Amino acid sequence: MLVVLKPESTAEHRDQVLRCLDEMELRGYVVDGARPMLVEVLGINGHFDRVRLEQSPMVDRLVDRDQPVLAAGREEGDQTQVVPLGAHASLGSRRIGVIAGPCSVESEDQILRIAAGAKEAGAGGLRGGAFKPRTSPYSFQGHEEQGLAFLAKAREQTGLAIVTEVLSCEHVDLVSQYADVLQVGSRNMHHTPLLTAVGRQSKPVLLKRGWSATLEEFLFAAEYIMLQGNRNVILCERGIRTHEKYVRNTLALAVVPEVKRISNLPIIVDPSHGTGQPHLVAPMSNAAVACGADGLLIEVHHDPSRAWTDRHQTLDIAQFQSLMRGLEPFAEAAGRGL
Amino acid sequence: MLVVLKPESTAEHRDQVLRCLDEMELRGYVVDGARPMLVEVLGINGHFDRVRLEQSPMVDRLVDRDQPVLAAGREEGDQTQVVPLGAHASLGSRRIGVIAGPCSVESEDQILRIAAGAKEAGAGGLRGGAFKPRTSPYSFQGHEEQGLAFLAKAREQTGLAIVTEVLSCEHVDLVSQYADVLQVGSRNMHHTPLLTAVGRQSKPVLLKRGWSATLEEFLFAAEYIMLQGNRNVILCERGIRTHEKYVRNTLALAVVPEVKRISNLPIIVDPSHGTGQPHLVAPMSNAAVACGADGLLIEVHHDPSRAWTDRHQTLDIAQFQSLMRGLEPFAEAAGRGL
Amino acid sequence: MLVVLKPESTAEHRDQVLRCLDEMELRGYVVDGARPMLVEVLGINGHFDRVRLEQSPMVDRLVDRDQPVLAAGREEGDQTQVVPLGAHASLGSRRIGVIAGPCSVESEDQILRIAAGAKEAGAGGLRGGAFKPRTSPYSFQGHEEQGLAFLAKAREQTGLAIVTEVLSCEHVDLVSQYADVLQVGSRNMHHTPLLTAVGRQSKPVLLKRGWSATLEEFLFAAEYIMLQGNRNVILCERGIRTHEKYVRNTLALAVVPEVKRISNLPIIVDPSHGTGQPHLVAPMSNAAVACGADGLLIEVHHDPSRAWTDRHQTLDIAQFQSLMRGLEPFAEAAGRGL
Amino acid sequence: MLVVLKPESTAEHRDQVLRCLDEMELRGYVVDGARPMLVEVLGINGHFDRVRLEQSPMVDRLVDRDQPVLAAGREEGDQTQVVPLGAHASLGSRRIGVIAGPCSVESEDQILRIAAGAKEAGAGGLRGGAFKPRTSPYSFQGHEEQGLAFLAKAREQTGLAIVTEVLSCEHVDLVSQYADVLQVGSRNMHHTPLLTAVGRQSKPVLLKRGWSATLEEFLFAAEYIMLQGNRNVILCERGIRTHEKYVRNTLALAVVPEVKRISNLPIIVDPSHGTGQPHLVAPMSNAAVACGADGLLIEVHHDPSRAWTDRHQTLDIAQFQSLMRGLEPFAEAAGRGL
Repeated sequence: MLVVLKPESTAEHRDQVLRCLDEMELRGYVVDGARPMLVEVLGINGHFDRVRLEQSPMVDRLVDRDQPVLAAGREEGDQTQVVPLGAHASLGSRRIGVIAGPCSVESEDQILRIAAGAKEAGAGGLRGGAFKPRTSPYSFQGHEEQGLAFLAKAREQTGLAIVTEVLSCEHVDLVSQYADVLQVGSRNMHHTPLLTAVGRQSKPVLLKRGWSATLEEFLFAAEYIMLQGNRNVILCERGIRTHEKYVRNTLALAVVPEVKRISNLPIIVDPSHGTGQPHLVAPMSNAAVACGADGLLIEVHHDPSRAWTDRHQTLDIAQFQSLMRGLEPFAEAAGRGL
Repeated sequence: MLVVLKPESTAEHRDQVLRCLDEMELRGYVVDGARPMLVEVLGINGHFDRVRLEQSPMVDRLVDRDQPVLAAGREEGDQTQVVPLGAHASLGSRRIGVIAGPCSVESEDQILRIAAGAKEAGAGGLRGGAFKPRTSPYSFQGHEEQGLAFLAKAREQTGLAIVTEVLSCEHVDLVSQYADVLQVGSRNMHHTPLLTAVGRQSKPVLLKRGWSATLEEFLFAAEYIMLQGNRNVILCERGIRTHEKYVRNTLALAVVPEVKRISNLPIIVDPSHGTGQPHLVAPMSNAAVACGADGLLIEVHHDPSRAWTDRHQTLDIAQFQSLMRGLEPFAEAAGRGL
Repeated sequence: MLVVLKPESTAEHRDQVLRCLDEMELRGYVVDGARPMLVEVLGINGHFDRVRLEQSPMVDRLVDRDQPVLAAGREEGDQTQVVPLGAHASLGSRRIGVIAGPCSVESEDQILRIAAGAKEAGAGGLRGGAFKPRTSPYSFQGHEEQGLAFLAKAREQTGLAIVTEVLSCEHVDLVSQYADVLQVGSRNMHHTPLLTAVGRQSKPVLLKRGWSATLEEFLFAAEYIMLQGNRNVILCERGIRTHEKYVRNTLALAVVPEVKRISNLPIIVDPSHGTGQPHLVAPMSNAAVACGADGLLIEVHHDPSRAWTDRHQTLDIAQFQSLMRGLEPFAEAAGRGL
Repeated sequence: MLVVLKPESTAEHRDQVLRCLDEMELRGYVVDGARPMLVEVLGINGHFDRVRLEQSPMVDRLVDRDQPVLAAGREEGDQTQVVPLGAHASLGSRRIGVIAGPCSVESEDQILRIAAGAKEAGAGGLRGGAFKPRTSPYSFQGHEEQGLAFLAKAREQTGLAIVTEVLSCEHVDLVSQYADVLQVGSRNMHHTPLLTAVGRQSKPVLLKRGWSATLEEFLFAAEYIMLQGNRNVILCERGIRTHEKYVRNTLALAVVPEVKRISNLPIIVDPSHGTGQPHLVAPMSNAAVACGADGLLIEVHHDPSRAWTDRHQTLDIAQFQSLMRGLEPFAEAAGRGL
């Protein structure tokens, strides 16, 4: 149970709530940094007097703890929030934003070649991992700051916005100096210290859904970021783990129209991880846009067969160009453009 | 391991294969009704001599048992097979076929009203259950033959093709007298006697994917039908069971382009069961068509709030009309029409 | 919503309920064969008057449709029902019942050898498939009646009770002539016509949980059988489909104590299908008994490497003997015996 | 592909491997801190010459990247590693170690009362969260260092070892000053920076399996810790996400004997999170021990109805005492003691 105080409340009003809870033999937890001020009620039991609490001065309303989404929620009539994708593009606007690039930044030459191809095909952002979350500690963990510098050079040459993952709290500052959008990966959607850390800097955050996160958990992860003051959150569906075997993950596209209904955050789709199969990336991109996605995140490499990571699901540049051409009529059917 | 005999083989050739297996201390199982003739090799062990078997007279090739799909497979250049949907429509052709109607046939009046609305909105087929598979034995099990008669009357009045579920082997004859397409439901996809029974009659079969069937199992279920001589099988994706809670099922749309790649059977999508949420049916219909679906199966009722079954996921007629209008640009973007 | 009539109600009382519903603009569905008589209320809406219905003569109570389990439910103080396993054993009593044998009956010699080994190791029942549900139509489908005759001979020689699967309604009579217990397989748990058919004969039924059935669906499947008058139902957990890869299925053992809490039916566990790995069968058998299982169903073959089906998960006879010896202290710890 | 160098290799040998890869137009990634030295081969393609690499001086062998588990693997004849649980107990030895306590440390009084009860019932460790990973940012996040101090006081009074979660890299030092065992929670199993950080300190680490992690990912997470030099890792199964609804998670106990087979790390089970139902905790504890678990992690509170978190799955002290008494015969049956 959350007590939401009125916007004009003071610390004194909050302390009144705490005292009131105390008298009911309950404890109140003051949510750090929340505006309006919030107090969680702990240890609810028979002494809990809801009406008395609701009538306390400056209490706006009580909210069930399982009802999420204070910051990320959509009110009647809300528009999807437009989040900048670098200087020249955005996500959440009429134009579908496409972010393309390799799984890992391998070398300057590699990222520049891919960036040029992505730009020419119509992408607005460049993805590429400098810090890589790997299942095995014996796998390549990324070029780290050098990789970020290569990405920055690619932005210089193409104007593409840089989207790259930040793995740990200690690298948030470093990554935000280079990137236009900080990505929080699927593995880290539940890592609340990282969510808090990216919420305290000002670059937009691309938040990928955990591969077995519920929708509620996904939105609460966005709330962790937004509670720190950074409202530029982009959600990203990338597939969930199921019993299916012909795909790496099951792309759960219904989350797109559901997010549109209950949240005003933009949502994009990653059909590369969402299927793990190059031949499924283009049709599922079409489907994503058809059900309302604001953008796409696609793995592209100039030579997938030699890619250091994710080689089995990566498109080559010609395939990506073809995807972009094929996407256009679906974007138009959705009342949007590329 | 399957031994595939050449088309011109005789019973004598087949018996040679069996004797050959015998000499290797193996057993052969002759697949009933298969053309070309097929022999499964049982009890494989060290004595198995693959080369000798391959060189036997009239042996065409050996196939690993886990490689599915002899009848349902797509060869290079194959077109999707066109399956008739009654006298006036089809599935697998350029036109997207839409089958709409209630979960259960409740009364003559009900089905006629819904059929009229569905027809006007552009549907080509009418769905409606006369035999209902219900979780609880204490739930309404359908009007049975009377329900079929009501459906037939709706066809008379509207020209819509009748698609209705057959639950048990003993009703296959009865249902095929009334229906244009026999539906095998998700619960029964694994019930091989029913698959065999609908394979022995001539009406097309709409085969829904089991809610936790693998793609391989789905195609093998089609093979059970086709092995009996009925090649008019329509596949239908209707969602799988996962950890997701905001939907009744997770609609796994990637199966659509994957089926297009490996099979020549038409595939349609049921976004009503696939999401269980009326507000998700239209966007997921758009997505289904965008990734290549040949048709849709949609629950529609003139008064969903009073529907006897599935009331929470059923569209009313106005919502269905709106869905059909919204679908049109996506059908065009996919190079198809409604 | 179900209306439960009092035990002494007559058809006239039932018709009163139907008329009463009619006056509320609702429809009533009379559940065929239910004792006490049951009427499902269809099309519930604003006119529904719960109190009036509850006060109708001879109405015992109203039950929410999602509250299952009239026949299979446990009342305070109920004992687990004891179901006979042939002439000499049972399931649900103090003694753990173990049913062992091959996936498929392959030959008379095979089944007699395995039966002798199983008997010696302490099994009370012999499993073996004569009608086989196979994913592929090109796989061996069982020796059918000949297989049943081999099983009967094994019973003659060993006294073991015969547990064998019935796949289709048309074979229920045949199988019940040979078997001591009819098995309904995981694939068919949702096939209600088969549940009804085995409910109409008198041999006990071993009902395997569908591999993605909910617990509620599992118990409702038992209700389908019991509603026809056959109360001798044995539940069997055999694993569910999940994302796990090192096992064929995830054995969800918590279902055992949960069934003990809410139902009085005996429940056994199949660790062979539940893991698909021979080395996991013995430890999971111990775990099953430790959390309250009434018995086990285990795949055993005298030469697993040459078994026609399920060779990868089948124990040999020595492994089965070792499992039985290892199980004994756990049965004792659970206050039971073998 | 990993190149494993011989133990006596020098940096010069490693550089030879890198040059050799260079000549094959490949890149080598030197795994930081690995002993023996490891080089991952990146960008494998047609130029890759396996034999040449294997014959390079000081190359021990090549390992497929998907074959995990260098540090955590079990060799023939290995014993399970014994990991200390504070000064007086251990996990992995003959005695089953039980760690009990509340979800959250709420107050000094609360933790002291629970610790006393847990100790009396026979627990060897005390759990309790001072840093809480919460789905919602509006939920109580733990008393942090004050909570750790309360736990330390409970250790002083009872001798119980303190097991408490560390959420973020920045708190590893702080938590390791107070705790006897650092817990990495299910949400953070994939957060590799935290794994690395706890690998660099010397207190044992309790690693909970991610709720949809594969077994391979689970073991690789342990490798991340062990690669830093901390070999005292305790694995913990706590249930996975599936379609099941009567439990909070599906407790996948087969992972216990599988880990015993392939790894020498001890493994314990958390039936509180693994079921989410108090009445299932005791039977699943019995099952866990029966299939080989080295210990248990159980939520206990002196007044669950007023617990601030996880109140619905927590045992009270009497229930915990009863669990411990009931467990004893199963521990003995498994050849162990409490």
